[in-house]
Amino acid sequence: MSLLGILLLLLELSTISAMAKTRQFKWRVEYMHWSPDGVEGVVMAINGKFPGPTIRARTGDTISVELTNKLLTEGVVIHWHGIPQRGTPWADGTASISQCPINPGETFVYTFIVDKAGTYFYHGHYGMQRSAGLYGSLIVEVAKDEKEPFHYDGEFNLLLSDWWHKSSQDQQIDLSSKPFRWIGEPQSLLMNGRGQFNCSLAAQFSKSSVPQCKLRGDEQYAPQIIHVHPNKTYRLRVASSTALSSLNLAIGGHKMVVVEADGNYIQPFSVENMDIYSGESYSILFTTDQNPSNNYWISVNVRAREPKTSQGLTILNYIPNFGSKIPISPPPLPPLWNDYNYSKVFYKKIFGLIGSPKPPTQYNRRFLLLNTQNRIEGYTRWAINNISLVFPTTPYLGSIKYGINNAFDTKSPPDTFSKDYDIMKPPPNPNSTYGNGVYMLKFNTTIDIILQNANALAENVSEIHPWHLHGHNFWVLGYGDGDFTTEDAETTFNLNNPPLKNTIVVFPYGWTALRFVANNPGVWAFHCHIEPHLHIGMGVVFAEDVHLVKNIPNEALTCGLTGKMFAKDKHK
Amino acid sequence: MSLLGILLLLLELSTISAMAKTRQFKWRVEYMHWSPDGVEGVVMAINGKFPGPTIRARTGDTISVELTNKLLTEGVVIHWHGIPQRGTPWADGTASISQCPINPGETFVYTFIVDKAGTYFYHGHYGMQRSAGLYGSLIVEVAKDEKEPFHYDGEFNLLLSDWWHKSSQDQQIDLSSKPFRWIGEPQSLLMNGRGQFNCSLAAQFSKSSVPQCKLRGDEQYAPQIIHVHPNKTYRLRVASSTALSSLNLAIGGHKMVVVEADGNYIQPFSVENMDIYSGESYSILFTTDQNPSNNYWISVNVRAREPKTSQGLTILNYIPNFGSKIPISPPPLPPLWNDYNYSKVFYKKIFGLIGSPKPPTQYNRRFLLLNTQNRIEGYTRWAINNISLVFPTTPYLGSIKYGINNAFDTKSPPDTFSKDYDIMKPPPNPNSTYGNGVYMLKFNTTIDIILQNANALAENVSEIHPWHLHGHNFWVLGYGDGDFTTEDAETTFNLNNPPLKNTIVVFPYGWTALRFVANNPGVWAFHCHIEPHLHIGMGVVFAEDVHLVKNIPNEALTCGLTGKMFAKDKHK
Repeated sequence: MSLLGILLLLLELSTISAMAKTRQFKWRVEYMHWSPDGVEGVVMAINGKFPGPTIRARTGDTISVELTNKLLTEGVVIHWHGIPQRGTPWADGTASISQCPINPGETFVYTFIVDKAGTYFYHGHYGMQRSAGLYGSLIVEVAKDEKEPFHYDGEFNLLLSDWWHKSSQDQQIDLSSKPFRWIGEPQSLLMNGRGQFNCSLAAQFSKSSVPQCKLRGDEQYAPQIIHVHPNKTYRLRVASSTALSSLNLAIGGHKMVVVEADGNYIQPFSVENMDIYSGESYSILFTTDQNPSNNYWISVNVRAREPKTSQGLTILNYIPNFGSKIPISPPPLPPLWNDYNYSKVFYKKIFGLIGSPKPPTQYNRRFLLLNTQNRIEGYTRWAINNISLVFPTTPYLGSIKYGINNAFDTKSPPDTFSKDYDIMKPPPNPNSTYGNGVYMLKFNTTIDIILQNANALAENVSEIHPWHLHGHNFWVLGYGDGDFTTEDAETTFNLNNPPLKNTIVVFPYGWTALRFVANNPGVWAFHCHIEPHLHIGMGVVFAEDVHLVKNIPNEALTCGLTGKMFAKDKHK
Repeated sequence: MSLLGILLLLLELSTISAMAKTRQFKWRVEYMHWSPDGVEGVVMAINGKFPGPTIRARTGDTISVELTNKLLTEGVVIHWHGIPQRGTPWADGTASISQCPINPGETFVYTFIVDKAGTYFYHGHYGMQRSAGLYGSLIVEVAKDEKEPFHYDGEFNLLLSDWWHKSSQDQQIDLSSKPFRWIGEPQSLLMNGRGQFNCSLAAQFSKSSVPQCKLRGDEQYAPQIIHVHPNKTYRLRVASSTALSSLNLAIGGHKMVVVEADGNYIQPFSVENMDIYSGESYSILFTTDQNPSNNYWISVNVRAREPKTSQGLTILNYIPNFGSKIPISPPPLPPLWNDYNYSKVFYKKIFGLIGSPKPPTQYNRRFLLLNTQNRIEGYTRWAINNISLVFPTTPYLGSIKYGINNAFDTKSPPDTFSKDYDIMKPPPNPNSTYGNGVYMLKFNTTIDIILQNANALAENVSEIHPWHLHGHNFWVLGYGDGDFTTEDAETTFNLNNPPLKNTIVVFPYGWTALRFVANNPGVWAFHCHIEPHLHIGMGVVFAEDVHLVKNIPNEALTCGLTGKMFAKDKHK
């Protein structure tokens, strides 16, 4: 795209709202020594910060991030998680799909509109660079002339993640090895990039021998204390960028009222604590109505895998108490890690706020996507309808737009799987195939996806998978245990007030149904947000009317076959 | 380059010698778990091998390596060390100079002629991928109708390297940090990728408490035993791909006759042991004239840095003794690590074989290149004439060929440095600048380079630097201590029978003089072959008549500003 092209686009975008601004950022991504949990390692930092800088904007604003890759030999991209990228699918920041990785030393400008208030985040989407720490928060406030549908006196933001002492590069190599080496449980849970590995803030309440943290407060791994005044209502924005972990969040002694999910308003409901899966974001309101002479714990705990990681902690500090004052009660405990019912009950409380868009009542195409763990040539992989995704070298957006042959499997992957498949048992034939075919969606059609979970390779094991869709929100129509049936759809789907989300879990041995309208020209990944699962094949790709996509910057496509195409005609 | 173009080029090349062959290889580069010294780590492997496969060819052959990058997020290139790449400067495999890094998933074909028999090797030349283990041997035998100028009954090949337990990626980050973190001494020395860290083959001769290795022989770190028959003469080809270490090689009880240096025949001379610096290669002849009932040690030891690394060992096995039979004498000991005189004496014995090309008696341009350690904005760097090289994003070969602006500093770096500079002291002003300017050389001119060593940042420290020139052999005209003077040139230069080499050391507080003719159109790096030194700026770049370079494959240039240029005119 020429400079003039960009200017014209910006001009066009800027007319959407007279109040809207273009918010420009210059970022450089580089490795940095850092101690996220008190043990020094290396993080992928932006402008010397880990996590990366928080972007705050208002609805209708244009974000323009000039990203320079200062890594030494690795490419990089950044995905703006939850932003639908209408008109700018090339800015989705997904390697192999929306653009080529930005080469070391090179700069790429992401320009896109944030069209909906909410709690979002951004992260690397190449290899396992999210695991390396490449993430940060993206908060979109309502436009100046608009109001949120709830009141609060102040707000805080918690970006949750998990952290390994082994580098994500080594983890990647482990996962890609034969025999497979699993990455294991994280060493620490981080809140805004801070956790404690060798000590605990709540050692005095613990039976373990971990010592009490002795912190000045300026350590890289010291918790970010949340300072509140008594008798106020606060909004806590929370997003999970974990590589693996499902989490449970609690504020000791305080109820939480959930008001937003993945950038969508929902009907407020109250909980004692809440599960949050990788790729999800929520806003909760809490009122500081407890004894003001105490501080309180804010805790995160591992769920859905047998926990081997200490809980993440910080302090809710009632001013004017000292921030470092230890709460008088022990930190909140989560539900049992494998009490999936607890999580299902939570999910079933989420409804779209009155006035939210409703789903079409009919679908045009329904996918049944079987989630299985498989083997290919001795490698351990995840597969969808028996195909394990390997990303192509040429981004789909370019290869489809320019009609390039041999860039990916032109045969569509199957829309469904055998009715005979027994989801309660390990795959009878665990061998699946590699593939990178695309589901081509017709414009404006309504798409149903039924995620069908199943037994993994080992007996009596079925794992949760938080599935994330790019380019769209979807309505969550329902959940169920066991095999999905057409009857389930007829009897249990909520077409009245389903919530919009961009990430949803499929529970062990269960199914989850969602619906969206294919009205966003581009190519969009739909994948398990557990980074090591995606890395070994757990995703599919949707293409929507790529011929309608305009203004793809050629700079986004100077790799693979599009790169060769550009170079081909050139004089030698 | 089109397929037809490649075919035509191959056809053209193949007419050079009726006997010449094209030798085709398909390689994939990927990470692999490996235990080079008994401690498991990760290596950069080729086709599942570490070190990479040995290429054997004959003079006049064309090598064609179809290299596929199977790394996950990193680019890659391979440099063919010692091959001048006449007519194929785009195949030199030097990132930022001759080509763009090959993106993950992509394939690039290196096609070049090996025009001179000798002992060569190949290695990564992007970031510190050589340190990661990306190297292998390249042996060029004389053409079928030709003979070597010496006799031998058999030959062996030893590729020497050094190995760290910290990944080269972490090392790179350490070196690029502020404050600087030095990588330290290697954990092990490797011969053909094999060393022993937690045990010694010669523990019984050692005073240390390291245990004797108990090896079956099939371990990844078991030494490659050299099997010989008594009373024969063998050729040992040896090349050093070390990241850091200068080495001394010895064969217990056997004299070595040096006959080849860096792919050039030299006047044979005999030594007890020999130094070999990173980037050098030699052939030596040895005769199995010792007591045939014993085996003998082959050893490598660290030189020129205070050794903290155990010697590397393997066994010279006189058949029919058991290969595992331990020699009766202790392994050879090297000269003192800082006995530079020993090494200078060795170097001064090297003369070109009678009949070798002689240097022009006059030079057209003489560079005096001051080697200093400096600081830039708090970063520790090496600088040449006060400029510390930072590689540009766009390969010089493309940016010069296509006349692209702003791809690199157009101002030439200085040809010389201040006469007042006191090489015996730390830099009075240690601050230097980053730069990536190029020395433009006129066609067919004779170039002198005087490498002038100096004191590093710390008092009384001056390090050795093995300088390697791409695209050329050079004549080594002389060496000296202290400041180089014009008088030195007049009185000490050997213009009669200097050896040709491609790598030469400059000793502490000394100078080394070399001469070459700028008759190879292309862009060529000249740099310290110590990988962490190059990584922090120790190199310069020569360009020779790039307008004469033909047939650069555009695929080599689909990054940076050349990539943008290709993409620019394309229809959107």
